[in-house]
Amino acid sequence: MTATAVPPRPRSTADPGRPGLGALLEDLVRAHRPTRALGSVPGSIPHLAEVDHTRFGIAVAMASGEVFEAGDAAVPFSVQSISKVFSLALALGHDGGSGLWSRVHREPSGTAFNSLVQLEAERGIPRNPFINAGALVVTDHLIDAVGDASGEVLRLLAAPSGRGAVNEDAFAAELARSGRNLALAHLLADLGNLRNPADAVVHHYVRQCSVEMSCADVARAGLFLADDGVGPGGRVVSPAVAKRLGAVMLTCGMYDAAGEFAYRVGLPSKSGVGGGILAIVPGVCAVCVWSPRLDAHGNSIAGAAALAELAERTGWSIF
Amino acid sequence: MTATAVPPRPRSTADPGRPGLGALLEDLVRAHRPTRALGSVPGSIPHLAEVDHTRFGIAVAMASGEVFEAGDAAVPFSVQSISKVFSLALALGHDGGSGLWSRVHREPSGTAFNSLVQLEAERGIPRNPFINAGALVVTDHLIDAVGDASGEVLRLLAAPSGRGAVNEDAFAAELARSGRNLALAHLLADLGNLRNPADAVVHHYVRQCSVEMSCADVARAGLFLADDGVGPGGRVVSPAVAKRLGAVMLTCGMYDAAGEFAYRVGLPSKSGVGGGILAIVPGVCAVCVWSPRLDAHGNSIAGAAALAELAERTGWSIF
Amino acid sequence: MTATAVPPRPRSTADPGRPGLGALLEDLVRAHRPTRALGSVPGSIPHLAEVDHTRFGIAVAMASGEVFEAGDAAVPFSVQSISKVFSLALALGHDGGSGLWSRVHREPSGTAFNSLVQLEAERGIPRNPFINAGALVVTDHLIDAVGDASGEVLRLLAAPSGRGAVNEDAFAAELARSGRNLALAHLLADLGNLRNPADAVVHHYVRQCSVEMSCADVARAGLFLADDGVGPGGRVVSPAVAKRLGAVMLTCGMYDAAGEFAYRVGLPSKSGVGGGILAIVPGVCAVCVWSPRLDAHGNSIAGAAALAELAERTGWSIF
Amino acid sequence: MTATAVPPRPRSTADPGRPGLGALLEDLVRAHRPTRALGSVPGSIPHLAEVDHTRFGIAVAMASGEVFEAGDAAVPFSVQSISKVFSLALALGHDGGSGLWSRVHREPSGTAFNSLVQLEAERGIPRNPFINAGALVVTDHLIDAVGDASGEVLRLLAAPSGRGAVNEDAFAAELARSGRNLALAHLLADLGNLRNPADAVVHHYVRQCSVEMSCADVARAGLFLADDGVGPGGRVVSPAVAKRLGAVMLTCGMYDAAGEFAYRVGLPSKSGVGGGILAIVPGVCAVCVWSPRLDAHGNSIAGAAALAELAERTGWSIF
Repeated sequence: MTATAVPPRPRSTADPGRPGLGALLEDLVRAHRPTRALGSVPGSIPHLAEVDHTRFGIAVAMASGEVFEAGDAAVPFSVQSISKVFSLALALGHDGGSGLWSRVHREPSGTAFNSLVQLEAERGIPRNPFINAGALVVTDHLIDAVGDASGEVLRLLAAPSGRGAVNEDAFAAELARSGRNLALAHLLADLGNLRNPADAVVHHYVRQCSVEMSCADVARAGLFLADDGVGPGGRVVSPAVAKRLGAVMLTCGMYDAAGEFAYRVGLPSKSGVGGGILAIVPGVCAVCVWSPRLDAHGNSIAGAAALAELAERTGWSIF
Repeated sequence: MTATAVPPRPRSTADPGRPGLGALLEDLVRAHRPTRALGSVPGSIPHLAEVDHTRFGIAVAMASGEVFEAGDAAVPFSVQSISKVFSLALALGHDGGSGLWSRVHREPSGTAFNSLVQLEAERGIPRNPFINAGALVVTDHLIDAVGDASGEVLRLLAAPSGRGAVNEDAFAAELARSGRNLALAHLLADLGNLRNPADAVVHHYVRQCSVEMSCADVARAGLFLADDGVGPGGRVVSPAVAKRLGAVMLTCGMYDAAGEFAYRVGLPSKSGVGGGILAIVPGVCAVCVWSPRLDAHGNSIAGAAALAELAERTGWSIF
Repeated sequence: MTATAVPPRPRSTADPGRPGLGALLEDLVRAHRPTRALGSVPGSIPHLAEVDHTRFGIAVAMASGEVFEAGDAAVPFSVQSISKVFSLALALGHDGGSGLWSRVHREPSGTAFNSLVQLEAERGIPRNPFINAGALVVTDHLIDAVGDASGEVLRLLAAPSGRGAVNEDAFAAELARSGRNLALAHLLADLGNLRNPADAVVHHYVRQCSVEMSCADVARAGLFLADDGVGPGGRVVSPAVAKRLGAVMLTCGMYDAAGEFAYRVGLPSKSGVGGGILAIVPGVCAVCVWSPRLDAHGNSIAGAAALAELAERTGWSIF
Repeated sequence: MTATAVPPRPRSTADPGRPGLGALLEDLVRAHRPTRALGSVPGSIPHLAEVDHTRFGIAVAMASGEVFEAGDAAVPFSVQSISKVFSLALALGHDGGSGLWSRVHREPSGTAFNSLVQLEAERGIPRNPFINAGALVVTDHLIDAVGDASGEVLRLLAAPSGRGAVNEDAFAAELARSGRNLALAHLLADLGNLRNPADAVVHHYVRQCSVEMSCADVARAGLFLADDGVGPGGRVVSPAVAKRLGAVMLTCGMYDAAGEFAYRVGLPSKSGVGGGILAIVPGVCAVCVWSPRLDAHGNSIAGAAALAELAERTGWSIF
């Protein structure tokens, strides 16, 4: 008998059924839609501060093609750092990571998400591709590969739905407040880990963060991460890269609360300061939840709580 | 239709078959048993430095009760930090974590595994239960709950196999070199996060680390982590606690290489400086691999490489 | 003409006159004796918290032998870290620093006075002899040289006046709260920079800090620092060592407020959390001021303000 | 008798005599002029790497107006960070520090001279005006006060001698390698501690560093620091500000070797990576020494050694 007698770990292909999952999502909306403006919004990004604190949407895109939605799942929001998963997927798609992983590590940061400390201490190699310094390196890498890095990220995000666009006013406002990211980019350049001009890299980085999409469309866009690299529009990355993106999301995707989130939710996830969280159930579905008020780590308070309940009630935790 | 129509994420119950898995383990022994003394051994623990560098064992304990072994899987080795999973399981078993999690965080450390920096910066709350400071707090917590903390850990480790014992010479030698752990314990005491005398806590902590067992017996002992909290001798923790132990292992179990290990292997794991690694395949099995030479992070070089190949060839990654 | 035609930088030998200086000290008492309990006292040392917050004393011991006193200058207080200057003088007196300076640096710490961070980062070499870690190394060095380190420090302190004694109750209480210092000592031992047992070194260190003396007697004891190494009882250190002790006091003597103190006062000084400050006017006198309430850096609020006014009105700044 | 009966600490007004001091400087040239290229030069500034390693010059400008010179004292070199003393003097001259000292601290940095760590940890307030971040804030402050900040610094440097000019090629090359300083400036802007555009501040900062002058002319320019604020061309700052500049130089002027330099030399000093050091003997003279090879802290190896011998043979230490 050969080694193929060891079966792969099976994965769900079952259709959970519209009524059951749909009703569960409605439950989550009732239980988690905020009634008070708890937590905070990013002080440095004016247009994010103006979003109604009662907003709450959730959507699940199944591998089967169905999409379940509830609450404000059709309302566009600013994806912010959720876009980092997509730029990383594109960068890895081009070289499988052989070049990229010599320029950025894959370890949880252990400190605040935009810290310069680690970068300086470790000679210009960012701790992981989801902290700002690492995302700038990924963007720089992607500019070399495709030229229009932010355009390519937008195309990948919008491919399944045909929707998604840069909010130009928000982009301009955010670009004007890019002191921290410019500092990071110039420091990366000084430490020899930036190939394109600091201004250009920050431009593409901020632009991809300024994309606005709905929960339903983000879930569709992220489905390839749950389905062995294949999305609604075809293959995006290899199965091996899809698995590895999941690993990076689980260990590094929630700023410096990755451990807490793995403990409470148990799904590979990536959050953005726009209040969105994209979560992956390998082999089953992609989930996107959105509610704008953030905890001290920069993660959506209501979004995280809803995902914890979703994981508990479905048993979808990967652990 | 009700919400129960959302199926739980299915898990493998298939018996992979003795010949297939057994042959695969033999392959791993052939491919990964070291021929040269690469890497290092802990300079501070004399008896670990004396172990033959060609040692390599691997064992898989299936939920079905079968145990597959290859190489030096029956040779006892020093479990060291692998014991931290078991003391954590006992501490959580007593109060479900309600008390413990106010004394220790659940985040990846992001720095070397025995650093004092974070502890001081965060006012005595260790980053996670697997760094030394966190393990000392877990031990202190367990002393309050059961008195003989290290004895209880040894009983849990030895329960399935009836084997496992403290190496008293090694224990005495290691206790005599406990300056770093004494420093951590006194600092925890100064910061108000230790209830028992520093000397007593360090004594129990070093003693549980000095237990010697074989790969096969460690795999049996860890099976409850893969099987919803139930081991060969009955229930150890609730299904929810078992899942959460897996989450803490994945994000914090490999010192400051947790992200890299999740990326390459994709299984919740805990390593020890004795060269052992315990890995969990939820719903399927527990794996223990051992080879004494360590990389710069303190993880077994050959053990990590073997687990990466095992995960790749079986598809057991949780991502 | 020879190089001796370059004159040494002259120093005051003038007697400033009892009435003038005495009146100035009385002015300082009137202006700086606290009426309210501003600032803080060390929470970890109970007997220091009980001292009346209106206490304020100042004394000036002239090279001529005269001593000017005002306010509570005759009331004993806990010298605490002021004793570190005297243990350092003894340690340097024995080997001129040849051995000691390989075990401790001479740089300002730049961080809180009892931080473990720097010690770990710099492999066990404390930043300077006045932070706690450095003082423990000095004590360890002195134990090797003289055996009864704290006894020798007390003898040096008490030599000019015949007064000064350990407050045994305070010593016992402080020793029972030595978690932080025990942590430092065990860490130093682990990093190979301690020769005597951690407990013994901490014992001597805490004991020398528990000496109680009056401002007048501390000023007499410190006069050798201002007078080329010669005190009322004869030579203590060489002129070169006296100069260098002044340099270490100026750059490292006021915890992490050394720069601010040099800017405002301009005199080599050493403070203690008992509220005392010993300041040196090279070639002229030694000053001791005492008032128990501390600023955020651990320095006496009223004492620092009084020294700033004294330096301004006398022109005694070394700059 | 009144308080004025307390005499100010006297200062030397004696003319040390040309032959004695001149001969001593010649001794220093013989003893300290390098014969081998020990140490290093700044890799990031090409034109500094080209300077002959045997260069060594020293000059002493007396309060009496005489200037003693030896070795390459008439050869222009790049003043680099020595210029920071002059921009600080100008900034303090405008507002006495009332505004400036709320934007920058006065503490030794305790870390490498261009570290971003401290800046981020302390919310944008640089540790002192001589680390790069602090010098950028001083430059920003001076731009607000006088507009052409670097022009004003050059005028102050050149005032006594009529010599001194920006090396335009060196300026252009250094400006093109300003990644680290741009990072600092953008970070300061992000943290709210920069009023002018980051590019403009870096431009003026780099420009003042690119001034070239001889030891003799730098000593003349720095004489006001030793002479109560009055230079050859008249008053530059008040006596109080002159004293305080000396205090900042002593505690912060030698990068992170300030403590060591105070111990060995005992004179307020400021070094630059061009190999120059300006040292002050309060009430007596200003000294400038230059030799291009640097130690690990960025200070001239031969220059520091020569100043240590000068201080020892003259007794000019302030301690």
